[in-house]
Amino acid sequence: MRFFSDNAAAVHPAVLEAMVAANHVDTAYDGDALSRTLDGAFSDLFGTDCAAMWVSTGTAANCLALASMVPPHGGVLCHREAHINTDEGGAPEFYTHGAKLIPLEGEGAKLTPETVRAGRRAIRPDVHQVQPHALSITNATEYGLVYTPDEVAALGEATRELGLGFHMDGARFANAMATLGGHPGDVTWRAGIDALSFGFVKNGGLSAEMLIFFRQEWADVAKMRRKRAGHLNSKGRYQAAQVLALLEADRWLDNGRAANAGAATIAGAAGSRLVLPVEANEIFLRLTTDEAAALRAQGFDFYDWGVGEARIVTSWDQPQAEIDALAAAIRTFGS
Amino acid sequence: MRFFSDNAAAVHPAVLEAMVAANHVDTAYDGDALSRTLDGAFSDLFGTDCAAMWVSTGTAANCLALASMVPPHGGVLCHREAHINTDEGGAPEFYTHGAKLIPLEGEGAKLTPETVRAGRRAIRPDVHQVQPHALSITNATEYGLVYTPDEVAALGEATRELGLGFHMDGARFANAMATLGGHPGDVTWRAGIDALSFGFVKNGGLSAEMLIFFRQEWADVAKMRRKRAGHLNSKGRYQAAQVLALLEADRWLDNGRAANAGAATIAGAAGSRLVLPVEANEIFLRLTTDEAAALRAQGFDFYDWGVGEARIVTSWDQPQAEIDALAAAIRTFGS
Amino acid sequence: MRFFSDNAAAVHPAVLEAMVAANHVDTAYDGDALSRTLDGAFSDLFGTDCAAMWVSTGTAANCLALASMVPPHGGVLCHREAHINTDEGGAPEFYTHGAKLIPLEGEGAKLTPETVRAGRRAIRPDVHQVQPHALSITNATEYGLVYTPDEVAALGEATRELGLGFHMDGARFANAMATLGGHPGDVTWRAGIDALSFGFVKNGGLSAEMLIFFRQEWADVAKMRRKRAGHLNSKGRYQAAQVLALLEADRWLDNGRAANAGAATIAGAAGSRLVLPVEANEIFLRLTTDEAAALRAQGFDFYDWGVGEARIVTSWDQPQAEIDALAAAIRTFGS
Amino acid sequence: MRFFSDNAAAVHPAVLEAMVAANHVDTAYDGDALSRTLDGAFSDLFGTDCAAMWVSTGTAANCLALASMVPPHGGVLCHREAHINTDEGGAPEFYTHGAKLIPLEGEGAKLTPETVRAGRRAIRPDVHQVQPHALSITNATEYGLVYTPDEVAALGEATRELGLGFHMDGARFANAMATLGGHPGDVTWRAGIDALSFGFVKNGGLSAEMLIFFRQEWADVAKMRRKRAGHLNSKGRYQAAQVLALLEADRWLDNGRAANAGAATIAGAAGSRLVLPVEANEIFLRLTTDEAAALRAQGFDFYDWGVGEARIVTSWDQPQAEIDALAAAIRTFGS
Repeated sequence: MRFFSDNAAAVHPAVLEAMVAANHVDTAYDGDALSRTLDGAFSDLFGTDCAAMWVSTGTAANCLALASMVPPHGGVLCHREAHINTDEGGAPEFYTHGAKLIPLEGEGAKLTPETVRAGRRAIRPDVHQVQPHALSITNATEYGLVYTPDEVAALGEATRELGLGFHMDGARFANAMATLGGHPGDVTWRAGIDALSFGFVKNGGLSAEMLIFFRQEWADVAKMRRKRAGHLNSKGRYQAAQVLALLEADRWLDNGRAANAGAATIAGAAGSRLVLPVEANEIFLRLTTDEAAALRAQGFDFYDWGVGEARIVTSWDQPQAEIDALAAAIRTFGS
Repeated sequence: MRFFSDNAAAVHPAVLEAMVAANHVDTAYDGDALSRTLDGAFSDLFGTDCAAMWVSTGTAANCLALASMVPPHGGVLCHREAHINTDEGGAPEFYTHGAKLIPLEGEGAKLTPETVRAGRRAIRPDVHQVQPHALSITNATEYGLVYTPDEVAALGEATRELGLGFHMDGARFANAMATLGGHPGDVTWRAGIDALSFGFVKNGGLSAEMLIFFRQEWADVAKMRRKRAGHLNSKGRYQAAQVLALLEADRWLDNGRAANAGAATIAGAAGSRLVLPVEANEIFLRLTTDEAAALRAQGFDFYDWGVGEARIVTSWDQPQAEIDALAAAIRTFGS
Repeated sequence: MRFFSDNAAAVHPAVLEAMVAANHVDTAYDGDALSRTLDGAFSDLFGTDCAAMWVSTGTAANCLALASMVPPHGGVLCHREAHINTDEGGAPEFYTHGAKLIPLEGEGAKLTPETVRAGRRAIRPDVHQVQPHALSITNATEYGLVYTPDEVAALGEATRELGLGFHMDGARFANAMATLGGHPGDVTWRAGIDALSFGFVKNGGLSAEMLIFFRQEWADVAKMRRKRAGHLNSKGRYQAAQVLALLEADRWLDNGRAANAGAATIAGAAGSRLVLPVEANEIFLRLTTDEAAALRAQGFDFYDWGVGEARIVTSWDQPQAEIDALAAAIRTFGS
Repeated sequence: MRFFSDNAAAVHPAVLEAMVAANHVDTAYDGDALSRTLDGAFSDLFGTDCAAMWVSTGTAANCLALASMVPPHGGVLCHREAHINTDEGGAPEFYTHGAKLIPLEGEGAKLTPETVRAGRRAIRPDVHQVQPHALSITNATEYGLVYTPDEVAALGEATRELGLGFHMDGARFANAMATLGGHPGDVTWRAGIDALSFGFVKNGGLSAEMLIFFRQEWADVAKMRRKRAGHLNSKGRYQAAQVLALLEADRWLDNGRAANAGAATIAGAAGSRLVLPVEANEIFLRLTTDEAAALRAQGFDFYDWGVGEARIVTSWDQPQAEIDALAAAIRTFGS
């Protein structure tokens, strides 16, 4: 029973069906009929004109977004534990040609306007220090917390004041939206977000993530960079098909809700063991070495998270039986 | 009727079936059961131990290969019309961090040992000039010519003498092998090739191309670079499934043969209009502006190639009726 | 007797005196009293507001200029034999993060508006091909020819039309101006030049070259890039002192004239042996192997230039006796 | 009276004399008679064969050293407050093509083997995290502390164990050696250092810093990178002359001692105000806002260092009267 990553989840059947349905001759790259609908589909979803491009990975989406905002000699303010800083093998530095990630602190990998302003103030405005050009946040965060529209808007105000671009890594944007409810424009462009990495792969997709530019004027250059990075698939229609299938009938939201519901059940069982509130599909909890071993002996796969803690992740397709079994097993430890 | 690119072709049904069959939970990235068989499958195919990694595009395969051979301050000898020099949006320069492509000439985009040696000799061995570290050839070439094992081996000898790595862009390797027959090791590692971009997308694949290292020791670094370039798909099993489906029962070769056969039929009709011999699935022929317009009026799509010439490309799934129709239409112009 | 490079020349005594005079405590980097006068001094010289920064080498000046104009995914139109393309060890690719130099042809390393327009037209405006963002010319050229203000203005018109930045590599700008006479603004900003590498080292300087931005708004970013490239000397006043000494009393022009005069004398002796007109301080002439050997036996140092030709360069401090001796020696060969 | 930076100091008269003495025709770049003696001169000084190259700035020396050790996808372990991490405008990222600086903590900007080993252990050895390839330390540190040979050797042992290259930023190596006494090989190559940035500019030089490779096999590539970075001055003899003048008669050591002596005098006056021991030529001490203002009113220039602290730096040529005056002024505040 897999609780170590939502990347291990299967693909939603509707996604595969859409790919099969797309299996005919069409124009190469992103000139096909499906890819050409993406700008419109996402403009509808977000309630504003935006430019939408598929890429194969969240890494590529994040890095193309950052490269749009930050020159090689610039920097990116982000949380020290942001995925872009810790788990993308230096991809942001590659795509930006050596921009510097400037780490900030905050509980649960969340940033506040105060942290951001203090981070900016700590840098002398001269040529000897790397000047930040963007702020990047993750929603839901790497620790499963969710930024509200108000929180993002407060950060957005800081970015405008400090002359920073504003990027949201939404690898788990669906999980965040499932928690937030409301309109997806509220926590993004209306709150000052310039570019969003909108994750679909953890959410039932196969190989297509979306990069959404609320500053459409950045899209043309980003398309050149996408090609230059080898991310302009020659049969792009199979990328577009995946995303459109998940947008249809709000499947992306349903999938986000399903994953979150599983996490909520387990969180309920974990009670006071929880290290952080569970707001999306990740649970961080205290487990002794013996308890962790006991869970593994019962077939539960998950990551240790430092000493005495563990990370559990639920997926869109996690069988209810697995969730109930894990919740029950945790309950037996007491809280 | 589409004759402008084999990128527009559909995906082979067996590929989609294999992806559907892979649709269950498995380890993320390239730790899954299918991806772990690739080294073995390609070692069997080539008759030598090799390391095999999937990527999304031929651009990524080519550039990861070049980055393995060439430091940022180095250069790559290649044909002036090589795809890496003309049609990858500067991706080789991106992945290599600014290495220089050093263009050489040759009929039909083919290079000879003499050209390569002369190209190397024209560069002073000092710090003021960029020193070549690799040779890259394309097989089949951008003009549809095929290098024989002997021709590659002669180039391979030159690379060893000159201290160069040796890369083959095999976007149409299947078409080349369909023409050559024989063992795929003969035109690659036995002829001195260090790394091969083995194309599957034009050949019935969906989004998986393979990068084959005959110098296995390069693979570990290339895997880091793959991640850093955002090409480590989180659900890699769907990439591996595609490739394995095309390897099975030599489907890749059958598809190459099918595309080549279509081209041969059209070449027969073109006769003395041919600008170059047709050795794979591309036809370059003389067409007047009126003739080109007449073909387009009949529904044939293809590219003009300079003034008075055209490029026609056949695909693995090209309907025989389309091929016969185009051959007949060309025949009406006389030769 | 050294005729192989004006880089081998000594430093003008006034330069060394100015450095000695600057030898006292002052603010570090470019905050010192001398460096702060440079913008004004060059604005006076060129008759327009410009931003002027010292760097250690012409390579750095050229590359910082290009990086101001060209994004990593862009290209630079230049002559195939431009110094930036052949003799800077890949520095333009380093500073621009992999932009592509797009080589054009032209007699004597000179470009025309027709060549530039044709070069641009040959590139499809799509993401697969690298799009040019700048034009770079060298004045005097690598073959000692001089662009007139009208010629530069015609190129400048083409750059405006094609949306290109316009850079002049003026490693031998003093020699060009010595030939042209007139106002230095005419062949630069009035003709559309956006940034000029103004060479002082070949002209009697020691280690200071100037980068002049006629688009002052580019200077701030270029200063960040200069620091990032390790070219912000900590004792900048000794850089500024050199340049100011050569500006004083038009020493730079006198030195250019002196070098050109030596070349003119030798050109007169070479007569019909000349491969190209001699317009600055470089002479390209036909010499048989035996003639070249005979000159070397008499102590003349110079470069062979392919088979049967040689390059001779005169310097600002070349003794008249050396010039006369070389002219006489060449005359003995007949023309 | 300037106590804010040893970069503001004048040039030693012997340096200028040596430059004047070098003022004659010689081979360009680093082929001249003086540059060719550098390998030998530094091999003698360090008691082992080494390769020695001049560059214009410490930034360039540091970054060329790091680029020799660290691939673009790798990382550099260093102190969080290392100059390379905080004050070089992103130059290490530029020269290494995006390698990541991985910050470690330690009092007075000093690292220990334990810190280094823990830093390495915190990084998972997989493709998702940037793997360190080098350790860089600064001696004397950014806080004026000096690593002893034993301390460096202990770090050196850790680097060998962890497979890291080992770089020493010796912008103030002369000050460190003045404190340590003994042989310069003991604190460098005998302790495991692979490359040393040996600072001369703060020590009485003008524009020449040295990069010393104790792994000579790295020098050839570094020379290519130097050219590519625009740091191969065309009149290199004036760079070599500076360094040779400071090596002669141990002037570099005398200058280091002179600067340190000034610092010791001021440290004696500061007494318990010292924040850190004074081991070289930098003094960090507690000063109230009023005290700082009072010193400035008396003409002393220095940097505030956060709230309630100040940094004072002494130079090789600091007049004794200035030192005595500052010591006396501090003494009046009491300790």
